[in-house]
Amino acid sequence: MFSEADLTHDRFLDGRLMIWQPKTGYRAAMDPVLLAAACAAQPGQSVLELGCGAGVASLCLGRRVAGLDLTGLELQPAYADLARRNAAANGITLEVLEGDLAHMPAALRGRAFDHVIANPPYFPPGQGTAARDAGREQAQREATPLSDWVRHGLKRLKPGGWITLIQNADRLPELLTALSQGAGSIAVLPIVPRVGRAAGRVLVQGRKTGRGAFQLLAPLALHAAPHHAADAEDLTEIAQDVLRRGAELRMGR
Amino acid sequence: MFSEADLTHDRFLDGRLMIWQPKTGYRAAMDPVLLAAACAAQPGQSVLELGCGAGVASLCLGRRVAGLDLTGLELQPAYADLARRNAAANGITLEVLEGDLAHMPAALRGRAFDHVIANPPYFPPGQGTAARDAGREQAQREATPLSDWVRHGLKRLKPGGWITLIQNADRLPELLTALSQGAGSIAVLPIVPRVGRAAGRVLVQGRKTGRGAFQLLAPLALHAAPHHAADAEDLTEIAQDVLRRGAELRMGR
Repeated sequence: MFSEADLTHDRFLDGRLMIWQPKTGYRAAMDPVLLAAACAAQPGQSVLELGCGAGVASLCLGRRVAGLDLTGLELQPAYADLARRNAAANGITLEVLEGDLAHMPAALRGRAFDHVIANPPYFPPGQGTAARDAGREQAQREATPLSDWVRHGLKRLKPGGWITLIQNADRLPELLTALSQGAGSIAVLPIVPRVGRAAGRVLVQGRKTGRGAFQLLAPLALHAAPHHAADAEDLTEIAQDVLRRGAELRMGR
Repeated sequence: MFSEADLTHDRFLDGRLMIWQPKTGYRAAMDPVLLAAACAAQPGQSVLELGCGAGVASLCLGRRVAGLDLTGLELQPAYADLARRNAAANGITLEVLEGDLAHMPAALRGRAFDHVIANPPYFPPGQGTAARDAGREQAQREATPLSDWVRHGLKRLKPGGWITLIQNADRLPELLTALSQGAGSIAVLPIVPRVGRAAGRVLVQGRKTGRGAFQLLAPLALHAAPHHAADAEDLTEIAQDVLRRGAELRMGR
């Protein structure tokens, strides 16, 4: 477990959410906030987050939508523990289970959810430099193939339920191939640092048993200045809505 | 074969290319011009177009790049005949073979090209309303699965050769799944009617045996006005460069 000396206490959603995170481990930034924004959960619905880490995405969602039944699955016990502490400290009910999504815990195998969300590791095995911190390495480096995240996520959905993922844009072909096995009505929202740039991340959403046409949506630009500004406060209006005010991000529907 | 009474004589590239097309059959518009613009063929290289129709894409490419070895494959003899007439009338050398890409003619089976380009039919079997014109129906309705266009196209490439396709955006998952079997360095250029809209078409390019990361590029907007203008002359500067001046469209490389 982490001791408080190993942690920082960070502001999300303009301070509406305060999150304990390890100083040197995997640290959440914009991605889980964007993920939560793209999940169109309605009050009373159930949401499962695969690989919830310190709980940022699920807790952002719980802050935006009242009365959700939130469940997180996390492989690393120290992060699962943090997620529970973060949920309690923010007054949001989040059940956190420890376990491996590739060997789904029995408590989840019998359940079907309205929504599944995930921010899977970005780096395939053997690519790039290993992180110095073991927890960070495990959170960022893919042990379970990306296609398995999608496959196991789809299994945990009710028919008509939605899966939403955020990933590095370079993994889009794998994601779409995996999602096409069992989901339809797929939409991709490219996340670009600035207007006119290639996508850095992609938000990808699909509906179990969905039959709607695939949609490639207009990119969401995070920063307004044409070049990196010394002042970090150059978020676009829509990025501010999502990242500061906790607004929903509509995936073209 | 078409008689002249069945044909119109249409301007492409601001009149630098004049194309005979059937009045009631499949009529080329912007898509083959965009396809040709996205193919980075260099003088002296060989290019195979699968399903060349009346030859617009190959002839646009021949107009932009000198000294190409251009070959078109076309299933419908009347369109193959038109492509030959269009090539001759525009003074561009284009060899047109009649045949089915799913049963590649012997003359092509022994050859490997630097580039393959294709504008495959947009509508899967059984979807949408049939075209009244049989030739148009055959050009627009998929008989050969989209994945086979990609697979047979990749077979006809030299190692390191590039395949470029234009398609309806809703077919992107299928295209990426097929391209991932044998190509890397894949890039997607979304074509949007106006800034902020979902993609209508996608230009997709991949390299046989390529190992570069996938790239989702910034969209190309065709029209500048925020809404449909009464004046059709509202093409963006980049769309004018490509559609009127025959400029190359760089796929992020």
